[in-house]
Formats: sequence, structure tokens, C-alpha cells
Amino acid sequence: MKNNYKVSNKLAVLFIIACLSVGRSQSKDEVQIKKMYDLALTEGKGYDWLNYLSNQIGGRLSGSVQAQQAVDYTKAQLDSLGVDKVWLQPVMVPKWVRGTPEFAYFETTPGSTTNVAICALGGSVATPSTGVKAKIIEVDGIEQLSTLGKDQIEGKIVFFNRPMDATQINTFTAYSGCVDQRYAGALEASKYGALGVIVRSMNLRLDNYPHTGSMSYGDQPESERIPAAAISTNGAELLSTSLKLNPDINFYFKQNCKLFKDVESYNVIAEIKGSEKPDEIIVVGGHLDSWDLGDGSHDDGAGCVQSMEVLNLFKKTGYKPKRTVRVVLFMNEENGLRGGNKYAEVAISKNERHIFALESDSGGFTPRGFTFDSSQEDFEKVLAWKNLFKPYLVHYFEKGFAGADIGPLKKDGMVMAGLRPDSQRYFDHHHAENDTFEHVNRRELQLGAATMASLVYLVDSNGF
Amino acid sequence: MKNNYKVSNKLAVLFIIACLSVGRSQSKDEVQIKKMYDLALTEGKGYDWLNYLSNQIGGRLSGSVQAQQAVDYTKAQLDSLGVDKVWLQPVMVPKWVRGTPEFAYFETTPGSTTNVAICALGGSVATPSTGVKAKIIEVDGIEQLSTLGKDQIEGKIVFFNRPMDATQINTFTAYSGCVDQRYAGALEASKYGALGVIVRSMNLRLDNYPHTGSMSYGDQPESERIPAAAISTNGAELLSTSLKLNPDINFYFKQNCKLFKDVESYNVIAEIKGSEKPDEIIVVGGHLDSWDLGDGSHDDGAGCVQSMEVLNLFKKTGYKPKRTVRVVLFMNEENGLRGGNKYAEVAISKNERHIFALESDSGGFTPRGFTFDSSQEDFEKVLAWKNLFKPYLVHYFEKGFAGADIGPLKKDGMVMAGLRPDSQRYFDHHHAENDTFEHVNRRELQLGAATMASLVYLVDSNGF
Repeated sequence: MKNNYKVSNKLAVLFIIACLSVGRSQSKDEVQIKKMYDLALTEGKGYDWLNYLSNQIGGRLSGSVQAQQAVDYTKAQLDSLGVDKVWLQPVMVPKWVRGTPEFAYFETTPGSTTNVAICALGGSVATPSTGVKAKIIEVDGIEQLSTLGKDQIEGKIVFFNRPMDATQINTFTAYSGCVDQRYAGALEASKYGALGVIVRSMNLRLDNYPHTGSMSYGDQPESERIPAAAISTNGAELLSTSLKLNPDINFYFKQNCKLFKDVESYNVIAEIKGSEKPDEIIVVGGHLDSWDLGDGSHDDGAGCVQSMEVLNLFKKTGYKPKRTVRVVLFMNEENGLRGGNKYAEVAISKNERHIFALESDSGGFTPRGFTFDSSQEDFEKVLAWKNLFKPYLVHYFEKGFAGADIGPLKKDGMVMAGLRPDSQRYFDHHHAENDTFEHVNRRELQLGAATMASLVYLVDSNGF
Repeated sequence: MKNNYKVSNKLAVLFIIACLSVGRSQSKDEVQIKKMYDLALTEGKGYDWLNYLSNQIGGRLSGSVQAQQAVDYTKAQLDSLGVDKVWLQPVMVPKWVRGTPEFAYFETTPGSTTNVAICALGGSVATPSTGVKAKIIEVDGIEQLSTLGKDQIEGKIVFFNRPMDATQINTFTAYSGCVDQRYAGALEASKYGALGVIVRSMNLRLDNYPHTGSMSYGDQPESERIPAAAISTNGAELLSTSLKLNPDINFYFKQNCKLFKDVESYNVIAEIKGSEKPDEIIVVGGHLDSWDLGDGSHDDGAGCVQSMEVLNLFKKTGYKPKRTVRVVLFMNEENGLRGGNKYAEVAISKNERHIFALESDSGGFTPRGFTFDSSQEDFEKVLAWKNLFKPYLVHYFEKGFAGADIGPLKKDGMVMAGLRPDSQRYFDHHHAENDTFEHVNRRELQLGAATMASLVYLVDSNGF
């Protein structure tokens, strides 16, 4: 698109008219919100913080050196904002380590092998040191296991290959429709005597990145646990096509991941004390841990720096909240939720009164709105603020799931919210090697931070 | 973000309920629109077409071999859709050629030089073969030239350095507030005896890519024309800082671009004849030409393939339009608008009745809505359809500029519309070397196509 001189002049006039008319009628809320958006887009710190977290520290799996570096770094940055209090909240977290890179191939005829990209699922056991090699059987979900039965599964590797539903506009809905294969596939397949499972990556795009993510054996005895890995979507397509041509394919994979004893880590917390109602607490947060394959920029470095930015924008605009506004960078969302549970446990033990919690854990993309988990009455109160977001193209205010880390805090009368950025690109990067800083756009990230700050401001100044 | 097994089951139930309730009440319009979105996201051809245009052909500047290859390729693809008619509409276009890569540096003290990335603006004259070397003076816009006057400008290079306003949520508004420097800077500066101009790239991000774009000398005699180039935003920042330390900096640049005689090219046109009102024509289009630095994926390969996809989605869903639906891939939007003018000229000469024109020329990003240039009455008719787009998170229906290529068609009683995708990333790539295919997301592009097809469907089935 070009834009010529004339058009430009015409637009400039329109813009001046728009400014003048806005200038006449802006409410206090409109002014404060505009200030925060302007600052976020010009002098915001979030993007630079994320640059450090991503490029100087990198992937921050719970219990890793990098997770500790992220704790130290974000605490220091929060200290530098001059807020009222910054502290670390100890929490024991699992320490799962991937080990040497995984390796996999399939064999159509003896000696004729094709390598495919896999990665161990988080929490999986290792294969024997010589790997697992067996026939592989494709299924389109856990439900199909009982149809096939032990007869057809025993001694084989099960290949879960139900793809995400591309017709879902909200890609998280498509994710929810598949993730049971990753989370419980190994546990369920082991009941039929499977030797291991390979799961199609939760990715709407065809590419070569395997996507990790949490899985669980429940309370299954260790001796019965079978190894689980994700295969890239391209790998899954190739394997599936090859199986149609030759159902007798052998699949081989090898991984030496390991679960160590729990180690101590921390939630990082900072707050501005409320000037009028300090006992009413508003929480805004994301999770500081990430998977180990990429640098965790979208999941969830973005949510952390956006939450920190809320305090920065309040300080920079001189806004002194009536209620206590607390940022929590939760540890261990990905493989345990220990941070979220610990924060709620301590809050309950101290009898703290949380009125609102907002989580950002859906990537640093253009903000579209929020989901709210609340009473109908409170939801209608929130809806009355929707028009204030219109100039920022933030339009999506719906009831729905708010967030995993703030989940344990939930109780009657409290309002829970989740930031909802544009979701189209999220699963291209989620839990994969390409969740990296260059895929975050500064403006999109900073708009998200301003959108969160605006909602927190409105909750703080109006209460529920 | 993780998502556990339980959440997934809960969501699955909610999803089934949602499907059932939708199933009961879906209108004919809802069904057709859903079909087109589903198809666009699963079997759409737009992304593959764009892959070819971008990676097999590349940048398609008017008059280039690549522009002709793009004409041939898109005509062949449109032919393959089995629509009623596909043809080429001849149009004479300018042929401007960049020549050998531009070169620039500034010199703080003799012999101490710093290279900076520049590119000639489209339509600029060359420098003398030995380049231009002169003192350089920074201004923040054309208005400042008269303040400085001939005294301070004559014999110097003028450096236009007013940046895009980062606080604009719509980045096109920020663009409109700057582009006069690029379009008319050389003409205006030459009136004060400047030897050349260097213009800060129209880019909200700090990076090393210079962004080209059209400029004009108006009817200035050739002998008075001075060369103009864009400098990357990083280069502009460095130069500006260096000028503050030392106002006596010499700037050198060299470019050997050249304007040849006009050559023949084509608009590519395809139509499905209306079954009931064939004389009422609906146009949907983008521009096939692009700048030469990148491969023109966002500007405007995206708009072309989305427009072609509208016909494909109609054919694939078996929808037979009542009115004639015509795709026009306009040639030469970037540096002449000759294609847009020619199409309108022929339409008028044939007394064709166009009732609606829709343009996509703002990148292949997630569609947010449309701007409409129409009567209030027609705009209100369109607003009544807005709810049909809600499931697709398309929410922005505002009055405004529709598009450059369809502009010449405009007349009273006609409705003009422009697709409005999310604009945050557009100017990171616009007219620069990094407007390339890997920066287009398949889902975002295809959602845009389905959004366009839905609006065209509604116009066709309801009329104005």
C-alpha cells in the first residue's frame, strides 16, 4: 500500500479533529488509560525485560539454573521500580531433565530407515539405554485403545495422531480437543501393554518442530511407566502415510530424560500497597518457568514482563492504587503448578482477601480482550468498562477459563480474568524450539501490558 | 500454558453443547459463512498461491520480468478455478529500475566514515555517477524547510527524520503522519537548493532495513530533480545522534536508479457471471505489483491471493452469486496506480454498473474488520451484518478510506470497502527487504480471505 501526499493531508486533518473532540470529553478513566497505552508503546520496559529473559537467560525449566537466574533477574528489576515490597516465596518444585537429545527413526524394510524429529514429553521416563524398537500402531485418540484392545496393542508403540481441528477460530479450543493424547496417552496405552507412545505435536502448522508439554502417569507404579515423546507434525504426516503403505513399520526411539528429587525455587512477588483499602488484594501474573526447548518468550516470558509492566505503568503515570496491587511471577506452571498452589496456600493461611486475579499466559500477541470467571453480576460490571477499550481495538469480553496459576486462588465472590491475545500463531511456537524472542513483536507485547494495566486500574478504582 | 486432561474434557462437553445449540438455530447466512471459513482454514489455496508468487517469482515491480510472470501465473491459476471468464486488461506502466545497490556513509572527520543502509525511493533520479557528498541538515518535516530557508539548506543534503507516532494504535494513521516526507520531501527541499534528501524509513521498529516507497517530483523539470533515498531507522537514529555531536558531518550517497519508457502490462481479471443480476458488478481485489526489495508477500501478494480465494470459496461451496463477482489483480499500485485508473476508465467507457468494491491491501494479518466508504444508509445496512462475523472475532466496522486501487471507481451510490487486518506488524515489513513469505501466517492469511468472501457473499445475496 502506498499513501499519497493528498491522502496524508486529509488524514492529518481528520486526526486533528478527532483529537480535539476527544480532548473535550475525555473522562478521568479515559485519560489514565490513554496515558498508560502511550507509555507502554513508547517507554515501556516489558520488551527489554523479555529480551534479557529470553536471550541472556533462555529456557527456564523448573529446577534449572536458568529458572534461578530468572528469579534473581526479575526480583532485581522489580526492586528497581521502587514499589513498596518485593519478595521471594519459597516453593518446592520438580526437577525433570531432558538429558541428551532424543533420537528416533522408523524402518520400512530392514536397513531402510527415516529419521524423524521427536522430543521427550515433560515428565516422561527414559527409554532403556538402547532405546525402544517395536511395531507402531496409529490411533486417533485414547478412546480407540479399548476398541483395539491388548491383542493389537501389546508389545507395540502407540502413535497418537489426532490433529488439532483447524476450523476452530480460537486455537486454544483446538488444543483442548487434542491435549489428552499428550497428557494421558502413555498412562492409558500402558494399560494395554504398549511399550511407548509417540504423540503428534500440538501444532496447527506443518513443520519440523516437535512440541513438548506435560504428561502424567497419575499414581502408576514406576515399573509400569512407559516412555512418551512428541513427534513434529511433518514427522507425524510422514509416519502416518508410511504406515498406510506398510503397517509393519518398526519405530525406534531413545531418550534419557530423568526426574530428580524436588528442589527449592521461588515465586517472585512485588506489590504496591493500597492507599485506601490495603487489605483488598489484586493479583496480576504470569509464569516464570518455561519449557527447555526454546527460550519461553511467548510461554510465558510475555505474561511475566506484561505483569511487571503493570506496576511500572502505575509508577510512571503516578497512579497510586487504592487497593494493594501485587504482581506474582509463578514458578512451575508447566510441570506441576506448584507455584500457583503455594501462592494460594499462603494467601489462605494468612487470611488474605483477594478480590481480583488476572493472568497472562496465552502469548505476547495483539490483545483482543479477556475471559472472566466470575458471577454474572460482576461480569456485567466489567462489561460496562468495555467501551473504554474500544480505541485500543480490545473487543473480546466473554465468560470463560481465566488461568491455571490463579486457579487455586479462586473462591466465591472473587473475579478471575485471563488476557486473550490473538491466538492464531500461538501454537506455531508453543513448547517448541521456536518459542523465541524474535517471534514477539514489541508493539503487540506492549499493547497487551497496557490492556492489562487498564483493567487492573479499573478494578482498583471501582472495586467489585 | 499447559492444559490438563480434566480441563480438556470439560471443554469438550462445552463444545458439544455449543455445536448442538448452534445447529438448531443457524441461518442460511451463518451456514454459508461457516462453510467458507472452514474451507479457507483447511483446503484454501491462497497460502500456496502466495508461496509461489513470493518464492518462485519474488518482487514484482511494474514493468519487470517478475511482474509479467505474476500476470501469467495468476491468470493460469484463475483459469484453473473454472470460473466464467478470465482475461488480461492491457495497461501502460512506468518502468523504474533500482540498478546497482545503493551505497551511503557519513563522515564525522575526514577519513572516519560510518556506512549506513539506504535504498533509493521509487521514482527517484540517480545521483551523479560519483555520488553526492555534502553537509547534511536534519529536519522534522517539510514545514521546517521554510523556517531554515535557502541560507541553511542550499548545497546540503536534507535529512527528514520525523518518526512515525508510536502511540497511534492504527499504524496506518502513524504512516499517514509521516509519508509526506517521503513522497514530497525531494520536491520541496529542491526548492531551497538542496542537493539530495535522505528520509527516515516509515517503520515503527528500530532495525537495519531501509524501506522504499513512492515519491514524486510533480511536474518539476528533470534538470531540477534531486535524488532521494530512505535510511533505515537504526541508521536514522545513529545519524541524528552523530549530528548532535557534530553538525558538520558530511554525508555521501550514490544510487543509479533509472526511469525507462512506459511498457505494457496487465490487470488480471476473472469473474463469475451473476445468475440473477449479471449487470450488477462486485469487485474484489488487491495489487499484483510490489516493490523490488522483498518478495511483496504482505504488500500485496496477500491481497491478491485472498481475492482469488473468494472465487475459489464460492466455487468450492457451490455458491452461485446472483450478481457478477469479479476479481481484479491491479497492476502498478505502488508507483503509478495505472491499473486502478485503467480499470475504472474501461468500466466507465463500457457503462458497467459497479455496486460494491472491496480491496485488501494492508497485509495478510489476522482480519479485524473493514472500513467502508459509503452513504450512511448503506453503512447501516452493512452494520446489520456485523453479528455474523462475531464467531470469527471480526469486530471492526467503521467508516473510512477503502483502498487506492478501487478509488478511481468510486461514485455516488456505490459502496467501497477495505479489509482491515491487525496493523501492528505491517510497517515492520512494508516496502522493505523483509516483506517475505515467512512473515505471513497461513491461518491469518486464510482468515482474511474467508472474511472477504463472507462480506462479498452478503453483499451479493442482499444487494444494496
